[in-house]
Amino acid sequence: MMIAHFKSIMGDELDEASLKLHPTIQKVPKGQVLVEAGKLESNFHFLKEGIVEVTVPGKKEWIYDFFFPNSVIGAYSTLLTGRPSRIAITAIEDCEVETYLWAELKDQYKTSLGANQLGRFISEQIFLLRSKREIDFLSKSAEQRYLELMQSQPDLILKIPVHRIARYLGIHPESLSRIRKKMSS
Amino acid sequence: MMIAHFKSIMGDELDEASLKLHPTIQKVPKGQVLVEAGKLESNFHFLKEGIVEVTVPGKKEWIYDFFFPNSVIGAYSTLLTGRPSRIAITAIEDCEVETYLWAELKDQYKTSLGANQLGRFISEQIFLLRSKREIDFLSKSAEQRYLELMQSQPDLILKIPVHRIARYLGIHPESLSRIRKKMSS
Repeated sequence: MMIAHFKSIMGDELDEASLKLHPTIQKVPKGQVLVEAGKLESNFHFLKEGIVEVTVPGKKEWIYDFFFPNSVIGAYSTLLTGRPSRIAITAIEDCEVETYLWAELKDQYKTSLGANQLGRFISEQIFLLRSKREIDFLSKSAEQRYLELMQSQPDLILKIPVHRIARYLGIHPESLSRIRKKMSS
Repeated sequence: MMIAHFKSIMGDELDEASLKLHPTIQKVPKGQVLVEAGKLESNFHFLKEGIVEVTVPGKKEWIYDFFFPNSVIGAYSTLLTGRPSRIAITAIEDCEVETYLWAELKDQYKTSLGANQLGRFISEQIFLLRSKREIDFLSKSAEQRYLELMQSQPDLILKIPVHRIARYLGIHPESLSRIRKKMSS
């Protein structure tokens, strides 16, 4: 399913024939931790159903991101560097994921055109996501970021509690309530 | 030079033979803008000498990052998406760069193993950089981040004015002075 998803986006820029991956399917019930902070990882996942939340543990627990179906999820920095994960990933709805062995993809980077095309494309997309979020934080108000989030992910407002959206935006829940009140008036 | 640099890191994970790039060399004097915010881009660069600063224009001009020799620099989001650049890149010392046509690399993504290996590796490195900075902002104090910056880039403190380092850390110059005083006492 992951390969079919990327093939539909990348077209002839993905040489499927030279790429051999053997995922397993996992059910991840709501509340279950898929990636634990402080641990090493050997897998990554493709989210087929459900929503997950990525958090950064610390004095104040930050919500780094939410992911919806058709997303690659995992502790990518940990896979690339071999250092323990700084993030945690938790199912906030019942999820179904395809689980891939990182070593299986990585081994194919030496010789496979398709593996490198896929790895490159995924890395580019993850970079775009992180870069947009970082620059948004630096250059836009919480109100602007909330408005754009509602436009790009209208599901969020229906499925995720307001106090969690506030933690994602990096503001107090009371500030978000004020923004919402202002916008609806 | 860029290819030799990455070959020295990637070893047999970079198939040089299938990668053909034709850079030009540019001198970029101190103060010159290499990438302008709001514009499209068709090139990326490899920094051979000097230091550049990446800024995010806005009400308050933020310093997104500094780059030192042996770095790939450019408006990567703009190249990938075709949307105008949200960042500006300025030489803060006299620089020399190798300039590459993005289209030349991108064309080779369809068939070249080496081009995809290089593009993947660069994307991974840029992702790691952005992800580290984002998680550091969410989970560490300005003091901690300053300390780590000094350890990883001791050149910064010698070559970059304190008020610019403060803007990179996202704090007031007075706060940075307090941190420095505290650390030296």
